[in-house]
Amino acid sequence: MITVAVDCMGGDVGPAATLPACAAFLASHPQAQLLLVGQPEAFKSWPQLLNNVRCRVVHASEVVTMDDPVEVAMRRKKDSSMRVAIQHVKDGVAQAAVSAGNTGALMAISRYLLKTMEGIDRPAIASQMPNARGGATTVLDLGANVDCTAEHLLQFAVMGSALVVAISGREDPTVGLLNVGEEVIKGSEVIKQAGVLLRNAANTGDLNFFGNVEGNDIFKGTTDIVVCDGFVGNVALKASEGLATMIGGFIKAEFSRSIFTKLGALFAYPVISAFKKRMDYRRYNGAALLGLRGLVFKSHGSADAFAFEQALARAYDAAHNQLLEKVRERIAHAAPLIDPEAIPSDLKSIPTI
Amino acid sequence: MITVAVDCMGGDVGPAATLPACAAFLASHPQAQLLLVGQPEAFKSWPQLLNNVRCRVVHASEVVTMDDPVEVAMRRKKDSSMRVAIQHVKDGVAQAAVSAGNTGALMAISRYLLKTMEGIDRPAIASQMPNARGGATTVLDLGANVDCTAEHLLQFAVMGSALVVAISGREDPTVGLLNVGEEVIKGSEVIKQAGVLLRNAANTGDLNFFGNVEGNDIFKGTTDIVVCDGFVGNVALKASEGLATMIGGFIKAEFSRSIFTKLGALFAYPVISAFKKRMDYRRYNGAALLGLRGLVFKSHGSADAFAFEQALARAYDAAHNQLLEKVRERIAHAAPLIDPEAIPSDLKSIPTI
Repeated sequence: MITVAVDCMGGDVGPAATLPACAAFLASHPQAQLLLVGQPEAFKSWPQLLNNVRCRVVHASEVVTMDDPVEVAMRRKKDSSMRVAIQHVKDGVAQAAVSAGNTGALMAISRYLLKTMEGIDRPAIASQMPNARGGATTVLDLGANVDCTAEHLLQFAVMGSALVVAISGREDPTVGLLNVGEEVIKGSEVIKQAGVLLRNAANTGDLNFFGNVEGNDIFKGTTDIVVCDGFVGNVALKASEGLATMIGGFIKAEFSRSIFTKLGALFAYPVISAFKKRMDYRRYNGAALLGLRGLVFKSHGSADAFAFEQALARAYDAAHNQLLEKVRERIAHAAPLIDPEAIPSDLKSIPTI
Repeated sequence: MITVAVDCMGGDVGPAATLPACAAFLASHPQAQLLLVGQPEAFKSWPQLLNNVRCRVVHASEVVTMDDPVEVAMRRKKDSSMRVAIQHVKDGVAQAAVSAGNTGALMAISRYLLKTMEGIDRPAIASQMPNARGGATTVLDLGANVDCTAEHLLQFAVMGSALVVAISGREDPTVGLLNVGEEVIKGSEVIKQAGVLLRNAANTGDLNFFGNVEGNDIFKGTTDIVVCDGFVGNVALKASEGLATMIGGFIKAEFSRSIFTKLGALFAYPVISAFKKRMDYRRYNGAALLGLRGLVFKSHGSADAFAFEQALARAYDAAHNQLLEKVRERIAHAAPLIDPEAIPSDLKSIPTI
């Protein structure tokens, strides 16, 4: 049995999304148990959860809102559903926690309660984006760390590899370093230094390093994992969401233009619906907070029940496939590489183009 | 009359794209003249250009290839079509140059020959991306500068504003600072410092600063201009191109799946074609190299004749609307702001979240 602690109050939608997601998740995961954390009144109209032997309600009197500053979430809301869910992971009662709440608060509370894993300086946020190969590319960091060193990027690469092994079952996944060109002389100083560390890690067998990749490689699926700092990752993720939303809006507008185009939509319906399914980012919902001494998954704030269910499934898979141990082993093995001496001092002389 | 110098050999396609583009451009721009720079044999089958009184062929014996390192382009190919075209801008014979050649070489040769404008530390690459408002968002820098200071970002904002005024005729365009959140406390140290400088510039009337924007705002069209460092801009641009390509591929694949979906495509044809037109990034081809003492426009390397023609039109508009003077005036006015003293020393104490 795997127990997942669920922050039922978090996100833009709250219990109206999280509770149906929990019911659907339990139905498809017979080996799972859930701790439903939230305010008592939220569960009133859910007898099928209250009466389910694989569910237990845990009361929490407060809710972290999407706008709460980190300090408020941390210091003034000590009985929030978010915090209580994570506390259950810390206490070993649950093997993972899932929340659709405010990312900054979730990361801060998770770091505070669970602490960072040995050998990790900074936890990272990793998520999947669909790619043209029909699979998904795991990208990290997506916003936890706006300023990163080369060592942080190496840690992200190692943790991302462990995640893909645990979630996708793919052995020896490939890692790309996000850059502005494929050549090793490209990029900022930090990126060039990270390139050196990642190549060293490939030589010692700690990573399957592909080399530099560019923004379009995320969607081409050139590598299983793409590593970048949280600023770049966050911008790439949100720009892609913005573009996908714009394209969706264009298609809708064009098909609703006249009676003829509406008729066209009717005929094109099977295609539009297949396309929609293929592009459905809800399927990829559930970002991992990696590098902590416990598993925490972040659902998109606007997730509906279907999307939140995916995040629950992802957290379950990670716990079931022992993601935590996989990260720990890989980081311990790669530790000698994460050493400032590993970067040659003459690297600064490589010209930036 | 405005004269544009054209590197006819550059890009993946070369004269097969640039020469028909020149012919079409001349037909639609009666006040334009072109200097066609390239190897003599390239023009042989183009009597309509050779005989056009508004065209003059300038011979250049060499071609900068897409793979040429900057050093090769700069030192070993001094008679390249790219360099000769830019030399004509320097000499005042042409008011702008356009090339589809290798970006690194184009920027390096442009900087070397034209020099940087007074008050500008680093030239930037600015281009337009379509937005959901039916217009376009101007984004810079798109890859010329991988490491930027706050002062560089302020210079980009000022130059981008001048570009939008010159190209779109929009007075007082809004500027957004690309960040990982809207709040002023978000982002890296450089971004927070840039926020201070941009707010100061708004107070002195040098900029219409909107505030922080996120990746999705590029496609929402929240602001006319989005400012970022070249690393982030390049990743956002290429990720968006990658996603658009993937979506295009999905639509094509879904419509070709069976006889029924092909029939659907037939009925949906007017919509697909309107959608394609709306999404046609070729319309936005032609990135400005800003901050130089002369106008240079970069066409996408894979541009076809239609796309290259857009780049020519953009260069013409920029010259016609005196972009260079507009940038110079705005930078001179904003110069007092570009002063490290303008950043309060206690900014470092703002927490990074």
